[in-house]
Amino acid sequence: MEISFSQKLTELEPAFYPRSIAVVGASGNREKPSNRFLQALLDAKFKGEVYAVNPNHSEVLGVKTYPTLSSIPQRIDYVICCIPSKSILAFLEDCTAAGVKIVQMFTAGFSESETPEGIELETEIVRQAHKGGFRIIGPNCIGVHNTEINMPYGISGLIGKSGTIAFLSQSGGVADTLLKSGFRRGIHFSKMVSFGNGCDLDCLDFLEYFTLDPCTRIIGIYLEGIKEGQRLFRLLRSVASHKPVVLWRGGRTKVGSEAAHSHTAALTSCYEVWSALSNQTGIIRMESGEEMADVLLALQYLKGFTGHNVAYISGLWDGGGGDAVSSADMLTSMGLELPRFSPWTEKHLRALLPPAGSIFRNPLDMGSSGYRPDILFHTLEIVDADPLIDLIMIQMHIDDLLTDLGSGSTAAIISTVIRFSKGQHKPVIIISTPGVPQYERWTLEGKLADVGIPVYASTERAACSIASVIRRNMRAL
Amino acid sequence: MEISFSQKLTELEPAFYPRSIAVVGASGNREKPSNRFLQALLDAKFKGEVYAVNPNHSEVLGVKTYPTLSSIPQRIDYVICCIPSKSILAFLEDCTAAGVKIVQMFTAGFSESETPEGIELETEIVRQAHKGGFRIIGPNCIGVHNTEINMPYGISGLIGKSGTIAFLSQSGGVADTLLKSGFRRGIHFSKMVSFGNGCDLDCLDFLEYFTLDPCTRIIGIYLEGIKEGQRLFRLLRSVASHKPVVLWRGGRTKVGSEAAHSHTAALTSCYEVWSALSNQTGIIRMESGEEMADVLLALQYLKGFTGHNVAYISGLWDGGGGDAVSSADMLTSMGLELPRFSPWTEKHLRALLPPAGSIFRNPLDMGSSGYRPDILFHTLEIVDADPLIDLIMIQMHIDDLLTDLGSGSTAAIISTVIRFSKGQHKPVIIISTPGVPQYERWTLEGKLADVGIPVYASTERAACSIASVIRRNMRAL
Repeated sequence: MEISFSQKLTELEPAFYPRSIAVVGASGNREKPSNRFLQALLDAKFKGEVYAVNPNHSEVLGVKTYPTLSSIPQRIDYVICCIPSKSILAFLEDCTAAGVKIVQMFTAGFSESETPEGIELETEIVRQAHKGGFRIIGPNCIGVHNTEINMPYGISGLIGKSGTIAFLSQSGGVADTLLKSGFRRGIHFSKMVSFGNGCDLDCLDFLEYFTLDPCTRIIGIYLEGIKEGQRLFRLLRSVASHKPVVLWRGGRTKVGSEAAHSHTAALTSCYEVWSALSNQTGIIRMESGEEMADVLLALQYLKGFTGHNVAYISGLWDGGGGDAVSSADMLTSMGLELPRFSPWTEKHLRALLPPAGSIFRNPLDMGSSGYRPDILFHTLEIVDADPLIDLIMIQMHIDDLLTDLGSGSTAAIISTVIRFSKGQHKPVIIISTPGVPQYERWTLEGKLADVGIPVYASTERAACSIASVIRRNMRAL
Repeated sequence: MEISFSQKLTELEPAFYPRSIAVVGASGNREKPSNRFLQALLDAKFKGEVYAVNPNHSEVLGVKTYPTLSSIPQRIDYVICCIPSKSILAFLEDCTAAGVKIVQMFTAGFSESETPEGIELETEIVRQAHKGGFRIIGPNCIGVHNTEINMPYGISGLIGKSGTIAFLSQSGGVADTLLKSGFRRGIHFSKMVSFGNGCDLDCLDFLEYFTLDPCTRIIGIYLEGIKEGQRLFRLLRSVASHKPVVLWRGGRTKVGSEAAHSHTAALTSCYEVWSALSNQTGIIRMESGEEMADVLLALQYLKGFTGHNVAYISGLWDGGGGDAVSSADMLTSMGLELPRFSPWTEKHLRALLPPAGSIFRNPLDMGSSGYRPDILFHTLEIVDADPLIDLIMIQMHIDDLLTDLGSGSTAAIISTVIRFSKGQHKPVIIISTPGVPQYERWTLEGKLADVGIPVYASTERAACSIASVIRRNMRAL
């Protein structure tokens, strides 16, 4: 009884574009999750109606509060439920009476508890939902985030710039970490959903939705278990050809898989199923949150990009030779190329840069002269003009620049790169290896992120991500 | 004509414990390397005499300045030379006349330039050194750093706490990055040396010295090429059995190797030689600066440690389930174990932590209750008492704690871990995955580093480093 794709878009409309949200159980006690969910909706300035449900209050955090869902005069699209699992059945009756569309259950204590009662209760809530005409996200989850309508992710009121990446995650924490680390790096999400145990709506539903969602161009997935392997396989193969999909599977080892069962009651599948998923569907597979963030950033930036030829530039300030040598190792061992510059390029670089301490082949070591904005800009122009080069990578050591040269000079270097990138140039990627921590580093990296220039903490991480993206883009041609 | 080990210690005494240093070419122009070297000696409060040499000044940056080395009344142990390569021969005559011991040549433009003149000039300076009775470090290098006598590394006046790690590097920049990133992480160095082209003193000399140096317990090496493979092999095999050695080889790929030749004139050797080096000598091999820092930190902390059994704790504040699952994957796939807790441990954890949202096996998810210092401390005590556990790893998300709970509560959590670690407990390792950047994170991570608790940015990086160290320690038993 599969429903059609376009039906899925309509069916999940109240999950991703709710006009009204009610938080059940909010009491004003700031330590309780219900209040944190409510506060986040207020902080984020959610573009819809917000209500609280609590029989003992008429107002919580300044929000009009009703004793039940069914006593709210407006129809409620999306309910956030944080009440204990023992009171859940009475609550679901209220949901039915009120005619709500989506119930997101933060509440835990179901099948993931591995107790007969928890397992039975989970079966029962699904039965109630089907009977009552609403759908459940969860239980044991954080639910939906939609930047477009200022619908915050769970208990944090943070709303980033609307982007094109949808992330669906069995774990609420994994999505939260990605969202927060992505915030400073300019990884922009369209939507997110964490679905925990996925007892009703699950991975396949959300994946179908994101496949059709016009705001979503890239899909990231963190998954601990699958229920319908064949359907997922077919779906991934069909999605991956037109939207890049990055999949991180938690629970791939024995201990991880046992933990996954206690976490989201996931039945992690055998190795063969997962291998087939990545090898035959064209998805990108990752094995950590860092890798996931890195590759989503590269996908966002290098849309359809298939160029393999990287120019690596180091030595802006202090010795760049070791960076040049070791980065050449990392880039080429990932399958990228560092072609030797054309004679024209080398000639012009030799005329511009100091003869001693520089390396004029590619990788280029600027011999500590690149901290001068004029020289840096001119170097970028020369390298950009080289027909053998597709992409420019610059090792900046922003912490070190700030430590040694101070704010003004470092900001001028960053502005130079930004000014260059605004011309009709080849893509620029910045490496900023951490040094003695300088807070201004975040500000400057933020400026780069704001204009869409990706920043990586090491050449290794950049190389790995870019190579994955280029491989994917080649395959999708 | 190999000299004996103890002779090496005496011979290199003026390199690592100079009583007097002269900077040749300093003029007061702050942009010039000579002045930056001189300023760094002053900033670091070098425990010895400092002189400048410049015929046109009697004082530079407040330092007594002489026209030549030979006109300085005191005998000079260590000379820092930043003058252009064309004036180098006259300068070396002055070195001979003055009876200096060590000449560190920052000056570049020798064999790494790949020109006949550069190559010939390098041969000539070695000839002059042998004739004049002094040794050369470099050319094209940053030279020696010794924390014990406040001898700074190159042009930065930064002096960290004296430690037990010696780092020898063909690249000045690689050593600089390691020093700076290590500064905030509590990676403490005894000595460092970057030797560039290594035309006279080279890797083998410094490795012999560090092997004997009583202040050095751990040796890190960044190397782009080797001249005497058999000698290096024998030496590494003999050192590695009593001092851990970590080797990162730059120039392992074709393009990297070509860049290495332009960087330090290194003749990178074939793959087979390097494989033999790591497989048969018991050294730890790394392929990036991040990995080098990570593993040095683990070596410093886990002296002789061979325990494989990790307890992983997550869920201090928000959802720790995904962290638990994915970290179990990362730790076990690196060969570490996460044994299930003993029944006693599980019983006590169940009595302490919230029933819903927690995972009571190992990995442990504290179900968002670990932000309370009393509960965290008690949990650590319970886990510590489990005889199946050797090492405790805690996922803290310090950025997120600061964002959500503020400074005071986060500092209290950090203090709890520090207080726990001060008891007679099992080693603790902290994971602090970056979130929305908070500057206080560095302060708090610094507090952990100050008491010797290692902090890693991801479980993956911690797992990889710890596993390498344990494998090495097992082998050295």
